[in-house]
Amino acid sequence: MLKNGLVQIYTGNGKGKTTAAIGQAVRAAGHNNSIIIYQFLKPSSLKTAERPSLEKLGIEIRTIDLNWDMKTSLNDPNVQKEMKKVIAKTLEDIKTSAQNKEFDIIVLDELAYCASIQLADIDKIIEIINSRDNLVEMIITGRDAPQELIDAADLVTEMKKIKHPFDKGINAREGIEF
Amino acid sequence: MLKNGLVQIYTGNGKGKTTAAIGQAVRAAGHNNSIIIYQFLKPSSLKTAERPSLEKLGIEIRTIDLNWDMKTSLNDPNVQKEMKKVIAKTLEDIKTSAQNKEFDIIVLDELAYCASIQLADIDKIIEIINSRDNLVEMIITGRDAPQELIDAADLVTEMKKIKHPFDKGINAREGIEF
Repeated sequence: MLKNGLVQIYTGNGKGKTTAAIGQAVRAAGHNNSIIIYQFLKPSSLKTAERPSLEKLGIEIRTIDLNWDMKTSLNDPNVQKEMKKVIAKTLEDIKTSAQNKEFDIIVLDELAYCASIQLADIDKIIEIINSRDNLVEMIITGRDAPQELIDAADLVTEMKKIKHPFDKGINAREGIEF
Repeated sequence: MLKNGLVQIYTGNGKGKTTAAIGQAVRAAGHNNSIIIYQFLKPSSLKTAERPSLEKLGIEIRTIDLNWDMKTSLNDPNVQKEMKKVIAKTLEDIKTSAQNKEFDIIVLDELAYCASIQLADIDKIIEIINSRDNLVEMIITGRDAPQELIDAADLVTEMKKIKHPFDKGINAREGIEF
């Protein structure tokens, strides 16, 4: 159990945001903290490689389960509407969970990006941060974190892309990028 | 096993470099890659919280084992000399291991920083990169990565500190920062 819970944010256009959050969860699991990872904006069809490893460590994972395609669906207003609804409902659940300290650490993967494209309500996220049990640690990832979120956080790191193999035409590789 | 091994670097003054490397290792472990993590510059007395979790996933960890203190020893010329020797020997071992593809993924934690303060020979590191079996993935962390290392890498992310609780006088917390 943590002595004081902080709010950490990993943002920016570089690689390492989600992996830093995962690494943080693994480190915390070594100290017998209870951890839950919410994956926003990952298509449910994508079986991310970290899942079996994390489950082996007793880390819970919840994927916001929508039938959508990463590249096209975000521009479809019907999909957007549905996603906003599901995300709003999930945020309510998280708020209750954080108030009741159901988990020592809550990872909200890609939520910063969801907030930046208005799929998630930034005011609700700030509400969760402010109303949580103060022992609960929150780790939020995603590019373009809104300034209000940065202001509400204790620790913010920007992952800045200096060089990326995608620039050279190398595709995402199973077990590395996903 | 990976189809092609890249060289990834996580550098900068922000939090998340080592945790991103750990997260990457955990993700790769989910795909049955064999992984070794070399910890440079972590005092052997420090039992990092991630160790039990990583061992549970079959990830090997080797800590460069020196009897030194993080804050004071780096300025002691005798300690420096001893460290340089041990690091040089370790790099030779890593070179052989990478040539023979003993592991799919080699994480070299804090090696970029060791190179920047001349505790590790940058030419030797470049030699390891260039002579390795080309299926071997290398992940190198540490602030102030030398330009030669960045040039030799495929993927470079700079972790930039935007906000850090240490600035507010909050101390490193067990299970979070170490």
